[in-house]
Order: sequence, then structure tokens, then C-alpha cells
Amino acid sequence: MSCKELMKVLGLGAVAFVLGVEWLNWLKRRLRDSRGPLKEVLFFPSPQVCVEHLFIRHKHFPCACPLPHGVETSFSRLLVHLLSARVSLDLCVFSFSHMELSRAILLLHKQGVVVRVVTDRDYMTITGSQIGALRKAGICVRHEMSSAVHMHHKFALVDSRKLITGSLNWTLTAVQSNKENVMVTEEPELVGPYQQEFQKLWEANDPANHKPQYTNGQLNIKTCKDK
Amino acid sequence: MSCKELMKVLGLGAVAFVLGVEWLNWLKRRLRDSRGPLKEVLFFPSPQVCVEHLFIRHKHFPCACPLPHGVETSFSRLLVHLLSARVSLDLCVFSFSHMELSRAILLLHKQGVVVRVVTDRDYMTITGSQIGALRKAGICVRHEMSSAVHMHHKFALVDSRKLITGSLNWTLTAVQSNKENVMVTEEPELVGPYQQEFQKLWEANDPANHKPQYTNGQLNIKTCKDK
Repeated sequence: MSCKELMKVLGLGAVAFVLGVEWLNWLKRRLRDSRGPLKEVLFFPSPQVCVEHLFIRHKHFPCACPLPHGVETSFSRLLVHLLSARVSLDLCVFSFSHMELSRAILLLHKQGVVVRVVTDRDYMTITGSQIGALRKAGICVRHEMSSAVHMHHKFALVDSRKLITGSLNWTLTAVQSNKENVMVTEEPELVGPYQQEFQKLWEANDPANHKPQYTNGQLNIKTCKDK
Repeated sequence: MSCKELMKVLGLGAVAFVLGVEWLNWLKRRLRDSRGPLKEVLFFPSPQVCVEHLFIRHKHFPCACPLPHGVETSFSRLLVHLLSARVSLDLCVFSFSHMELSRAILLLHKQGVVVRVVTDRDYMTITGSQIGALRKAGICVRHEMSSAVHMHHKFALVDSRKLITGSLNWTLTAVQSNKENVMVTEEPELVGPYQQEFQKLWEANDPANHKPQYTNGQLNIKTCKDK
């Protein structure tokens, strides 16, 4: 074999080798991706720990509160997922009285995240409900219009790509005492239907499409500008 | 090329061809599987339709009830998934008063499916609760032992490989009136943690590990033989 032919064979061999390695890498990535997107399951009750660092990321001094620090719990994971919102948060929750969760939603709203909330008609006015605080801050909240029906969902959609759903109402009892579950997933086949359901409920409960109702002479449906 | 050499080349070519086809088929299956296992989302309320055919599969005559027939709903899909159990059904449910769901569980038990139920202490005795009927039939039911805590889960595990979970309690109001969601999946990364949680609750609420408690002079913890 002449030197020229040898160079040709070596050149072709090198090209084939590089292409082969590239193809194997592609296959490896494809097979690894087959495990799919994020899937996380959180169980409650969750022990009480300090979650201050999740709200104030650039704090210079460590928190001085008496709760355990640097401990990851189901509740802190839930907060991390909620606070990961950058564009939107669609929340559909039956009962909402948890102060830290309310603080998280208010922080997102302050940061410019578009927050929409659909809640239950009866439970939005119970003692300790955070719905009033959200409305006061300018967050648009709609509630189930029918008094005969409960809006019993407990799910949130972060940036329309991450679903947080389960049995957990957003209350202190649910987080700290009850046996509850929350699933977090970015699986499009699961996120999609929940996003559609949220939009359906959002539109169905638009106060503009319903007659105002009065209780004891007072209007009991608050309207808000759709974002 | 001699005839012998030609046969060798053809033989090796055939073997290479068959192996190549097999490998391509394997790759095709692997890439198709990357879409992942069953994922289904059901929303409620569900319209009332006849579900008799799901209970009596070999019925010769069509059902004469006045409800719509041959219509698939979220509730009929839920029943289909539950009735697909062949070996076991582990159920963790806060409130259980739905007659058709009770009928499904009793049918599975009759068919030899090992049914285990964990429920809430307070809600198992409310009017219309089906827990008594399950126990009467010999199904082993355990309840949250602490009176200060609610067992608020609403999930089921079919044959330890299919998870049914969501906001839906097993009541008529939840199925026919409320806004509720149920997710059905065979994703092992999701099924696994729920199966572990069930086992944890099952063992934690074993009456054998708890002192019997009395209310108005009557023992209020029923024991049953573990299956």
C-alpha cells in the first residue's frame, strides 16, 4: 500500500471513528433521556425547620431563629419548587391559610411573576384564610361561583411546565400534622391536562360572566382585572 | 471467488443482516419506550352514566337502568383502573362513602385480590361510610391511630404497579359535584414512593402495636388478621 493510500485509509478511519463516537454519544443521551423529566414525591407531615434562606437568598447573617437550620424537608422542597417560578404561577387550591406559602406567593408577585389563583367559595373566607392578603396585594383571585360545589383541587403550575399536585391543602395543619402527599413533575403528558383544567376553571369563574350576588346587602364577589 | 467462499460470504451476510434487524428492532422498542409508561389524568365532576357492564362483564342482556349507556366518563375510567387489579389493591383514603366504589372493592375481594385499606379515624364512622361494609366482608382495614392527625391521603395502588392519586375522596359529592382531579400512572419513580408510604402507614397503624382505646365503655379499635 502506497503512502497516499495509507493516508486515505487513515483519514477515512478517523472520520468514521469521530462519527461513530458522536453517534454513540447521541444514543447515550437519548437512552438517558428515556428516564424522563422531573418526578418527585413529597410526604407530609413535614418537621418544622427554618426556611428563611429560601426567601432571603443574599442574607449576610445566618438566621437567629430557634428552628433547626440547613435541614431539607418536604415543606422546604415544596417552597423551592414554588419559588422557582420566573414567569407565571397558576394556583388552584381549596383551602389556603398557610402563612409561609402566602409569603412565597406574595414574593413571586412582587418579583413580577404573574400569579392567578382559583379557590373555593366557602373556604376563602374562613378564619386565617390568606386569600384576602393576596387580593390586597393585587393578585387576581377567582373563586368557584356555584355555592353547591366545592373547588377541591390542590394543584399549582409553575411557569406552565412544572406541576405540583396532591392531597395537601395549603394549611398549617396539613403541612405539620396530617398524612398528605404532593407530587412534583415536569412530565408534559401530566402538566398539559392540568394547565387546560386551570384555564377552564379560570374562564368559567370570571366574575364578568356572572351576576353580582349580595349577602346582607353587601356585594360578595370581588372583581379583579385579568392579567 | 469459489463456490465455497461465496457460501461463506452469503452465510455471514445473512447472519449480519438478521443481527442488524434484531438490533434495530431493539433500538426502536427502546426509543418508543422512552415515551414512558401509562399516564392518565381524570377530572371531576363526572356525569352519571351506567357502569353496570364494568361489574358484570358476561351479562347477556343489556342493562335496563335509565342512565346513559356506553358512555366513558372520568368515573368509569377510575372504575376500570381499580377493577384491573388481579393480585392486590392497597387503598389509602380519607373519606369513603361511595357505593359503587365500595362495590368494586368488595368484588375484587371476592375475586381473591388482597385488599388492604388505611383510612381516617374520624371519617370512617361518619354517616354513609363504607368502611363497616368492607370490614364485614373480611377486608382488613386500619385507621390512623392518632386522634390529633388526619389521614388525608386519597391514593390507591393496583397490583403494586399502578398508582391512582389526586384530590378525590371516595364520596358521591366528590365524584358528582366537586372540582377534583385524579392521576393514574404506572411510572415506577412515582409508584415506588407511594407503595413505601402505604407500607409505612400500614405498619404504623397495626392495632397490635397500640393499646386498645375505649369510648363510652366500648372498644373502638377493631383488629383484623394481617394478610
